[in-house]
Amino acid sequence: MSYVHPVVGVPPPAFNVVAPSTAGTKDLQGMPGTAGSLALRVLQFGFAAIALSVMASISDFQTVTAFCYLVVGTGLQSLWSLSMAALDGYALLLKRSIRRSSLVTLFAVGDWLCATLTLAAGCSTAGITVLLARDLDQCGPNDCSKLQASVALTFLAWFLSSCSFFFSFWVMATS
Amino acid sequence: MSYVHPVVGVPPPAFNVVAPSTAGTKDLQGMPGTAGSLALRVLQFGFAAIALSVMASISDFQTVTAFCYLVVGTGLQSLWSLSMAALDGYALLLKRSIRRSSLVTLFAVGDWLCATLTLAAGCSTAGITVLLARDLDQCGPNDCSKLQASVALTFLAWFLSSCSFFFSFWVMATS
Repeated sequence: MSYVHPVVGVPPPAFNVVAPSTAGTKDLQGMPGTAGSLALRVLQFGFAAIALSVMASISDFQTVTAFCYLVVGTGLQSLWSLSMAALDGYALLLKRSIRRSSLVTLFAVGDWLCATLTLAAGCSTAGITVLLARDLDQCGPNDCSKLQASVALTFLAWFLSSCSFFFSFWVMATS
Repeated sequence: MSYVHPVVGVPPPAFNVVAPSTAGTKDLQGMPGTAGSLALRVLQFGFAAIALSVMASISDFQTVTAFCYLVVGTGLQSLWSLSMAALDGYALLLKRSIRRSSLVTLFAVGDWLCATLTLAAGCSTAGITVLLARDLDQCGPNDCSKLQASVALTFLAWFLSSCSFFFSFWVMATS
């Protein structure tokens, strides 16, 4: 089959033109709008929400600024992950694309901010937990096991949030 | 001017084909091998090295794990930034390209690890500094101003390291 058609003012294309690199990575699991991304979001939400609940169950957590910050940080992470999970579910159910340039930029910025806040919250609480458990050896009255569990869950939420950020940023850079 | 030529088995190209976005961002300041990147590296090294020195000048910093971790974290950040500054200087002086795929992947991974370690070090020390200065009001004997200066400098080093990571990751994704 062959066509003969006029092309006005445009030279014939070179033979070594390479397709944009996005074509091969279009459906990589974990990118926005895939089942992998939905799984990441649900796990992030789960870990962040449990970390928040464990911290909130310590009776005098309000007396330490870093513990309050962990509650705020994991709370924001939970809300963001839940919203993104809803968006991924919408994209999967209705088979719509959510990889428009402006949307993907918003995902990348939001993921970076949330991952940074969550890591900061986990580390500031971890610093105090290690101070109490190891440096001062005052773990009896301070619910150290709850603190350690809350920090570990926050780090898990941060790690998964970082994965989502990498996927969003990759799609942003290659779209 | 018009051409008439046969095209075998290939439909005519769409009119809204956009050139790949990498072409325009080839020499964006901050990308590996540019003067902007060299400036970022020198500043990262400076902030991390001063943060380390300020922390090391506190007489009993070894008694708190988080403070030792800040010294290790900013030490690693300084070494990484100095090595990258040397590489940028080499690329600029000899006009060599250091944007090979494997090298840029190494830069992106190294920058991410260093930025994460530095943020973690800054936040764990910040948690304890706020505990001492605000929650327990025990700032007299604890060199709080030095702690605050060290945390602020560590955050500056982290922010600049994050900028380098964004540039490296962008080049990695688009190359």
